[in-house]
Amino acid sequence: MQLTRAADYAVRVMIHLAGLPPGTRLPGSALAAATGVPDSFMSKVLQGLVRARLIWSRRGVDGGFELAAAPESTTLLEVVEAIQGPIQLNRCLGSGESCERQPGCVVHAVWAEAQSAMLAVLRGANLAGLARRAEAETFPE
Amino acid sequence: MQLTRAADYAVRVMIHLAGLPPGTRLPGSALAAATGVPDSFMSKVLQGLVRARLIWSRRGVDGGFELAAAPESTTLLEVVEAIQGPIQLNRCLGSGESCERQPGCVVHAVWAEAQSAMLAVLRGANLAGLARRAEAETFPE
Repeated sequence: MQLTRAADYAVRVMIHLAGLPPGTRLPGSALAAATGVPDSFMSKVLQGLVRARLIWSRRGVDGGFELAAAPESTTLLEVVEAIQGPIQLNRCLGSGESCERQPGCVVHAVWAEAQSAMLAVLRGANLAGLARRAEAETFPE
Repeated sequence: MQLTRAADYAVRVMIHLAGLPPGTRLPGSALAAATGVPDSFMSKVLQGLVRARLIWSRRGVDGGFELAAAPESTTLLEVVEAIQGPIQLNRCLGSGESCERQPGCVVHAVWAEAQSAMLAVLRGANLAGLARRAEAETFPE
């Protein structure tokens, strides 16, 4: 019932990238230094984000990681689910799951509503907005 | 990020008890038969509910388990938290937790809002309402 540490770290990385000028590419070591994500976790986090096509990886002298899409179009929910898979408050909410109690189960609808309320908040927060707020906190006017 | 099986089972048990006439006491075996909760889980679930004072246990010939409070006054959230402790979407939302990033962390507020939206739904569902709906599903007019 909790975000994994890797998902929390992935969010930090994505917000950091979203605060940089478009097209900026950073090596993993620079991302680790900027976000405080331990090196031991960083490669797992970056692999997950690359696999979900939220960032691109380029090798070579100018290599590094950059956002794959505009930060306005990537939500907090996408980042979390890229790392830890679909959020399911209860097993019975999984798309492939069936439960013999489901016809007539009165709690199913409540779990679904609770999950939906939570996901709406995470879907409503995009990386651009979060990066702007982070910058305002770091450099208040 | 998921309800435990024990919490899910506890909810079934509580809704079943809430649908019975006030003061009804049932042995664990009858509760297991009525709810489909496996015997191996039932004692853990009942212990957790007794410890949280959501049900009373009485020994002897007329022994068994009964609701400790009116079903209107017990919420789904209380039942879940009785079994698996406080729901925390992220570590940083725990009451005793501190995070060195929290001053200025822009995501903390989003996690808090998402959690709060979810908890409001679970807090808004009480056992009496769920038991009424369960009865309506079982014996439609």
